[in-house]
Amino acid sequence: MISKNRIKYIQSLHLKKNRDSQGLFIVEGVKSVSEFIQDSSVTVKDIYATPDYLSQHKDILEKKSIEFTEVSFEDLKKISLQSSPNQVLAVILKKEEFLTKELLSTETTLFLDDIRDPGNLGTIIRIADWFGIKQIICSKNTTELYNPKTLQASMGAVLRVNVVYLDFEELLPALTNVPIYGAVLTGETIYTSKLQKGVIVIGNEANGISERIIDKLTYPVTIPAAQHNGSESLNAANACAIICSEFHRQLNY
Amino acid sequence: MISKNRIKYIQSLHLKKNRDSQGLFIVEGVKSVSEFIQDSSVTVKDIYATPDYLSQHKDILEKKSIEFTEVSFEDLKKISLQSSPNQVLAVILKKEEFLTKELLSTETTLFLDDIRDPGNLGTIIRIADWFGIKQIICSKNTTELYNPKTLQASMGAVLRVNVVYLDFEELLPALTNVPIYGAVLTGETIYTSKLQKGVIVIGNEANGISERIIDKLTYPVTIPAAQHNGSESLNAANACAIICSEFHRQLNY
Repeated sequence: MISKNRIKYIQSLHLKKNRDSQGLFIVEGVKSVSEFIQDSSVTVKDIYATPDYLSQHKDILEKKSIEFTEVSFEDLKKISLQSSPNQVLAVILKKEEFLTKELLSTETTLFLDDIRDPGNLGTIIRIADWFGIKQIICSKNTTELYNPKTLQASMGAVLRVNVVYLDFEELLPALTNVPIYGAVLTGETIYTSKLQKGVIVIGNEANGISERIIDKLTYPVTIPAAQHNGSESLNAANACAIICSEFHRQLNY
Repeated sequence: MISKNRIKYIQSLHLKKNRDSQGLFIVEGVKSVSEFIQDSSVTVKDIYATPDYLSQHKDILEKKSIEFTEVSFEDLKKISLQSSPNQVLAVILKKEEFLTKELLSTETTLFLDDIRDPGNLGTIIRIADWFGIKQIICSKNTTELYNPKTLQASMGAVLRVNVVYLDFEELLPALTNVPIYGAVLTGETIYTSKLQKGVIVIGNEANGISERIIDKLTYPVTIPAAQHNGSESLNAANACAIICSEFHRQLNY
């Protein structure tokens, strides 16, 4: 049984300001929760689950010493952010992520310049994970990593990619001798540019890369359009997918 | 002034079943509405707009003989699907789209196998438009073209790409001698496959390409991942972006 107070408490975590002040976030659904439980670097604080879920997962929860509360489907609906919740909700401790400076010169890194849509942030993390990018740096105005829509869109990739919030100006001193790429509308085509490991800047959905960052790009690059009278731009996550794929192709094939 | 009945009527178009039965759909926002007004193949039935909008756009509406009604921001909010509506809402006549068979053998075409997320469908149309793909064929279980989220994500690309609903079995007879590509997890890498113009099948978000269509692929291809313990797949629209980009690169660069 779950108390009314507890329900209110979990509902309070639906808001970013409370996630921030409590240092907690919510993950939902059998598959996602399993991934977080299995990851040894994650501290799962509480699990709220239906009898169905517990009959199948009680052993692992006890083995991992994770506290769990059995809830009815009606109560799960009350604490869930989803319109049709899937058996289980976990409250998890946020982890502070730090910049790994060494990776900046040895690996390809993404810098997200004010990505605002949680779905875009989530799929960008999934793209990074697919292409072996280990670190994403988000400007402080980028949407929240722990927004439930971000987590859902990342499909567990948040567990494998280091996501740090840091403004470009703070990052810049660490980028001496690191090539800085950015997708703009009038750069050299990515297909024929000789791409190397470096930092790739992905611009905001509506405004692209900020003026002050454009000035710092070593290589402004472009995904060439097939025609001049078509769409003016691509969705930020789709552009990121294409660029990461082209880096992967050129560096590894 | 807008009557209560008229408000109810427009609200009824928020539902797919009423859009279907009336043959109408809704487009919102200054930029999108302008694109639809400018397009000579589109019949804009009515415009509902704030005094601000009308003071700037009355001339073009009169020139194009489009009926318009001035509404207060409060009334616009009532008929809008957006939480913060932007000055104008248009009710537009649906157009029946037909398969252009000739394009199947002369151009690259997308076939969407049950894409369910309107945001994905919209950005896929935008990707197609960017890469000069003129025709998209959607399986009948693919989400609705006229869903407001699809239209918004397409950013006007729906006006330039022919989107037809047709099941794969109905399309198949027209594909004699047309290569059929499909992104699967264990195909030949797209980077080294010699890609030619043909049909590219994009699978459903959760299940990928249907078994019955997999059997018909001439070339099962794969976007190679950098590692084996990372994400299991990419978001459908992101995968589509990467594949379309690679076709564009190989065929035109």
